Amino acid sequence: MANPTAAMLVIGDEILSGRTRDSNMHYLAQQLTKQGIDLREARMVSDDQAAIVAAVKALSATFDHVFTSGGIGPTHDDITADAVAAAFGASIGVRQDAYDLLAAHYERQGSEFNEARQRMARIPEGATLIDNPVSIAPGFTLGNVHVMAGVPSVFEAMVASVLPTLTGGAPLLSQSLRIQRGEGEIAGPLSALAAEFADLSIGSYPFQKDGVYGANIVIRGSEGARVDAAMTRLAALFPES
Amino acid sequence: MANPTAAMLVIGDEILSGRTRDSNMHYLAQQLTKQGIDLREARMVSDDQAAIVAAVKALSATFDHVFTSGGIGPTHDDITADAVAAAFGASIGVRQDAYDLLAAHYERQGSEFNEARQRMARIPEGATLIDNPVSIAPGFTLGNVHVMAGVPSVFEAMVASVLPTLTGGAPLLSQSLRIQRGEGEIAGPLSALAAEFADLSIGSYPFQKDGVYGANIVIRGSEGARVDAAMTRLAALFPES
Repeated sequence: MANPTAAMLVIGDEILSGRTRDSNMHYLAQQLTKQGIDLREARMVSDDQAAIVAAVKALSATFDHVFTSGGIGPTHDDITADAVAAAFGASIGVRQDAYDLLAAHYERQGSEFNEARQRMARIPEGATLIDNPVSIAPGFTLGNVHVMAGVPSVFEAMVASVLPTLTGGAPLLSQSLRIQRGEGEIAGPLSALAAEFADLSIGSYPFQKDGVYGANIVIRGSEGARVDAAMTRLAALFPES
Repeated sequence: MANPTAAMLVIGDEILSGRTRDSNMHYLAQQLTKQGIDLREARMVSDDQAAIVAAVKALSATFDHVFTSGGIGPTHDDITADAVAAAFGASIGVRQDAYDLLAAHYERQGSEFNEARQRMARIPEGATLIDNPVSIAPGFTLGNVHVMAGVPSVFEAMVASVLPTLTGGAPLLSQSLRIQRGEGEIAGPLSALAAEFADLSIGSYPFQKDGVYGANIVIRGSEGARVDAAMTRLAALFPES
């Protein structure tokens, strides 16, 4: 059976302005690969309601799962929960269990549970909460969309909460070989190998740094014996590697 | 006049599998910000013809410019040029000026200009070449889509070739203030400030690391005096920062 498919949606101006470099997508990609869920697409949009709604609709209709990061905090630019609700035509309001979690948290901290913080208890109708052991304010799953925070430590904790609840597939295995020859020299034999092992994914990722150039050849598949067989052939094709 | 808009399309399995972390989008974002071109969306898709065609069509119809990285080398998984041609309904074939550039390059190197390398001279009808001073094989611009290599050193050189040919806008200026208080405490006054300076973008980017938490407030706009005025007010609101 084919593995489940997924997309990631990174929400926030800070990535697109070049101010910060995304790390959540890279983290999620690694976790999904381990669990046998194929990450097929990632999108990054700004804090713009129409852009978020359009992306959520398109991705949730195309893939088995959508994971979002960012925009669920207490400030004016945190509009993800409302946008996801709008994408599903769901109503949204303060939910009692989320409110109680947050109220207890701020009471323990001796901080005021003010209006801004109460916004974080606004959850779309019909959603399931995602546990946040780091800073309490929960994420949520609505339909096939898993809505998580943008702060990496919180995002990673939420991924750890939600991934065990999902059915994975056969973990994707990979092996790689670094070849210090130009891609143009190895492309012919490599193409023949890819045609012969059509059930595997064989990728060539060129590098060029400090005058050294070549390519990392990565062979991926879910059957270990097939990956091994292709790797043995690859090594025989380029014995000097 | 509003600034030109742009999207980036990162093509390649290696990012989505978590094997490598993208750096091209981050680099492009910084360069576009300097030139006053607003990067509004980024997408990452795998080496899949249908996915690339769909993304190129959607992004080129929505934004003034689309920048792609990856998939223009000599190996079997390099299908970007064909996909971009298909998205525009353009024919594609070996182009003489690109062929001549490459033939001369491999002759200088004493390397064979074989069939795989000749693939890199396949350019869609009607495109303009993008100069590649690093490894010669050119990128190209077709319509409003700028097609560049995925190897970061080559991508960056191609960006340097193409950006000066584009009309930019007013460079986006930004100032930021680091506030060591929870977003929930500052959200109220910050929201009022954002409403007062509606012509600016005011973003709150929370952090949480090693027990220290707070938010970086970033104020962006193209008029320096307005950004200064908002920054002065922000600093007065949170004098302990």
